[in-house]
Amino acid sequence: MDKQYDSEMNLTLLTDFYELTMANGYFQNGFKDTIAYFDMFYRNTPDNGGFVIMAGVEQMVDYLKKLHFTEEDIAYLRGRGFDEGFLSYLRDFQFSCDVWAVPEGTPIFPGEPIVKVHGPVIQAQFIETMVLLLINHQSLIATKANRIVRAAEGRGVMEFGSRRAHGTDAAINGARAAYIGGCVGTACTIDGRDYGIPALGTMAHSWIQLFDTELDAFKAYAREYPDACTLLVDTYNVLKSGVPNAIRTFDEVLKPMGKRPAGIRIDSGDIVYLSKQARKMLDDAGYPDCQIVASNSLDEYLIGTMLDQGACLDSFGVGERMITSSGSPVLDGVYKLSAIERDGEIIPKIKVSENVTKITNPGAKCVYRLYDKDTGKAEADVITLQDETIDPDKPYLLFDPEYTWKQKTIENFTVRPLLEPVFEGGKCVFQKRPLQEIRSYCLSQVDDTLWDEVKRFEHPHNYYVDLSRKLWDLKYQLLKEHSQKS
Amino acid sequence: MDKQYDSEMNLTLLTDFYELTMANGYFQNGFKDTIAYFDMFYRNTPDNGGFVIMAGVEQMVDYLKKLHFTEEDIAYLRGRGFDEGFLSYLRDFQFSCDVWAVPEGTPIFPGEPIVKVHGPVIQAQFIETMVLLLINHQSLIATKANRIVRAAEGRGVMEFGSRRAHGTDAAINGARAAYIGGCVGTACTIDGRDYGIPALGTMAHSWIQLFDTELDAFKAYAREYPDACTLLVDTYNVLKSGVPNAIRTFDEVLKPMGKRPAGIRIDSGDIVYLSKQARKMLDDAGYPDCQIVASNSLDEYLIGTMLDQGACLDSFGVGERMITSSGSPVLDGVYKLSAIERDGEIIPKIKVSENVTKITNPGAKCVYRLYDKDTGKAEADVITLQDETIDPDKPYLLFDPEYTWKQKTIENFTVRPLLEPVFEGGKCVFQKRPLQEIRSYCLSQVDDTLWDEVKRFEHPHNYYVDLSRKLWDLKYQLLKEHSQKS
Repeated sequence: MDKQYDSEMNLTLLTDFYELTMANGYFQNGFKDTIAYFDMFYRNTPDNGGFVIMAGVEQMVDYLKKLHFTEEDIAYLRGRGFDEGFLSYLRDFQFSCDVWAVPEGTPIFPGEPIVKVHGPVIQAQFIETMVLLLINHQSLIATKANRIVRAAEGRGVMEFGSRRAHGTDAAINGARAAYIGGCVGTACTIDGRDYGIPALGTMAHSWIQLFDTELDAFKAYAREYPDACTLLVDTYNVLKSGVPNAIRTFDEVLKPMGKRPAGIRIDSGDIVYLSKQARKMLDDAGYPDCQIVASNSLDEYLIGTMLDQGACLDSFGVGERMITSSGSPVLDGVYKLSAIERDGEIIPKIKVSENVTKITNPGAKCVYRLYDKDTGKAEADVITLQDETIDPDKPYLLFDPEYTWKQKTIENFTVRPLLEPVFEGGKCVFQKRPLQEIRSYCLSQVDDTLWDEVKRFEHPHNYYVDLSRKLWDLKYQLLKEHSQKS
Repeated sequence: MDKQYDSEMNLTLLTDFYELTMANGYFQNGFKDTIAYFDMFYRNTPDNGGFVIMAGVEQMVDYLKKLHFTEEDIAYLRGRGFDEGFLSYLRDFQFSCDVWAVPEGTPIFPGEPIVKVHGPVIQAQFIETMVLLLINHQSLIATKANRIVRAAEGRGVMEFGSRRAHGTDAAINGARAAYIGGCVGTACTIDGRDYGIPALGTMAHSWIQLFDTELDAFKAYAREYPDACTLLVDTYNVLKSGVPNAIRTFDEVLKPMGKRPAGIRIDSGDIVYLSKQARKMLDDAGYPDCQIVASNSLDEYLIGTMLDQGACLDSFGVGERMITSSGSPVLDGVYKLSAIERDGEIIPKIKVSENVTKITNPGAKCVYRLYDKDTGKAEADVITLQDETIDPDKPYLLFDPEYTWKQKTIENFTVRPLLEPVFEGGKCVFQKRPLQEIRSYCLSQVDDTLWDEVKRFEHPHNYYVDLSRKLWDLKYQLLKEHSQKS
């Protein structure tokens, strides 16, 4: 299951060109060995939700492990005018940074470091584009999938979106992310082969159309797949043709074989109404165990409304709106310089901005999650400077970094550092976990550690992401300095 | 330039699992040699626009050329329970279909066949997922890029979105599609190497932050890149710090070298206001030729409004909203069976649906574009049966397929078949064109052949996509038959 579909691809030049102009600039300006710290964090939660599900770390690690410049890359860059000194540096490029990341499947919140990189500035800067691309994409889809899975209230959700995905990688790793977020499987077969995700599917309308009649098509399918017989009933008319023909097929093909039907699938029309009628017809015919599957442009809102209206649905196939996160197709993760080292000392760096929300948190940092000991619920995340720890045996004062008079003392809590090391001095120390384990971890984190208020789809409670006193002081000191300078 | 980043990837199993259950079902039910026709078409234009730009054909052709099942694929499918007869069929699988496609860069409209496949039903069905994925994705991005390029009214638009793309392929082929749609270049370096697209970029905020002062950072950059010196001016304060330091750099570094500045880039704040002030400062300092580049979550609407308000902008870097087509991140192309052959005769097939818009056009078909001879403008597309031609020397009666009393006779026109052969009996006959040529073709098709009314962003005129009388008759005859049966 370890085979990566892209294991042979050289994606080193999948990078914004400015990473190269800057790399060369650092090289030529004596910054080659300058050590820098970078943070990745996101600013806005897609769909105005309460949190994001971290995903894509495994692909980021794979990318970093094989990062090198081929002769073909060098030749292209020579043609772009870079000099031989720099090209020779690239030819010898060996990744030597420290990297930390929040484990896949963890709920994450705006503004906190989710990937942290420490090392030579040329390297730490160069990887920006791919780190962002991989984490932004998969976290976006895992988050959307988790919303849809929660809306389905325990019913199975299948990922069905390959045909509307943004390219091949979006289909393959999108299905992976959707599985992390809680989907029970995917239609994307290659994810079955390479990631061990349950890959499932039955028939398209063309199967029905190819036969002279719908009944012929159903019967042929049932004979071929008596143990997994889910029939698509909306090619002509769900209630007048599809469901009656399905029941006849169950009676005439499956029953004599001693088999029970798996289900029917409705892909168009008013699914609430049709599902109720179909349910009654199936029950009356002696198939109360026959599941009804819905598909057709579903998302968390449509699924929620349909269930509120009493739709008789047992599972969902969700396509385009999950694989593209269509309501919010962007996770806006950014990657910012937070500090450099000079003579062994850490010099914090800040990016000021006319957009206040674009001001960064300076310094080399850590992030801790505080859980209430009695409930097990996450109460707050605290971003601190790297040399700080939080002592769970003492009360800890939380305060809102923007409205600092909003304060709360927390006691009786446990502390967990969210960032885990994945590279140390360029050596991979990442512990790859089975995908099934990541998925279970994700579901239990969401179910057991998040308050319902944070999980609301609309206007969720703002989970606390606070700064330690020391970090807050540093940030405001730097802001004051910049404001006086300009 | 011919190297494909994914040339070594085996994507055969990037397919919905139902393509395999159906393939096996056809194989076991005596349909192995049944010849079928499939059409790809889309239903809704993204962003409520007037048309879509066709893209992704070259990647579809690459996929079909190398389509085969590896031993690894076979082993996975054996594990999924398929029998040896079918697996042996897959092992010997050789693509033998005829395929037609509308050339990349062509404006296309809802409901018309843009890819047509004819061949053994197992094969023609199997390729559905990838045909849709590749064409849907790239056409979506080319369409969005074209909208943004039109909003920029002749100013250059750069594709900047890799970090927010949905995975690696979305970045790479998204940038390709954006170039087809009219972008002047991309930040995605690998597209420079593999597709020959101009790949450009200058600096991130981290470049500025790494130096002790903004001025130091600007001067170092100017010394390194005196011929392409575009400075990012919003790290601290655009008007109080960024622009004055940029001007000082131009004066103190570039002027003594006899060089002119390339530009400044503004990435935050109120870009309309800032650009006007910056323009004045640059002009007053003797740099009227210094361009002002804007970035920061731009799209066609924001660019249009900024230009309406008199923003002094010369070019745009557009990221997430183009690379994800964020307002409409889905092109809803579908792939439907239209006919089968039996005893040498074509049997048309239709998919009826409770959603009227989901009813398909039956039969093996062609699509023609009719251009007015005097204006050169496209007047209508007509979908016909495969054996029909349209004689440009005779008046042709167009009628609305839904409101058939809406009729119009067209005269003095030329006719162009839109579908071009790309495979004949499995043999690739696709004429690959240079990307620059596809881009020019796209821009001239949009500029020269489409009426302005069709190009409006909001409520564009509905371009006529009509059915020939013969096709219309066939469709309504089949609909009547189905309606009587159910």
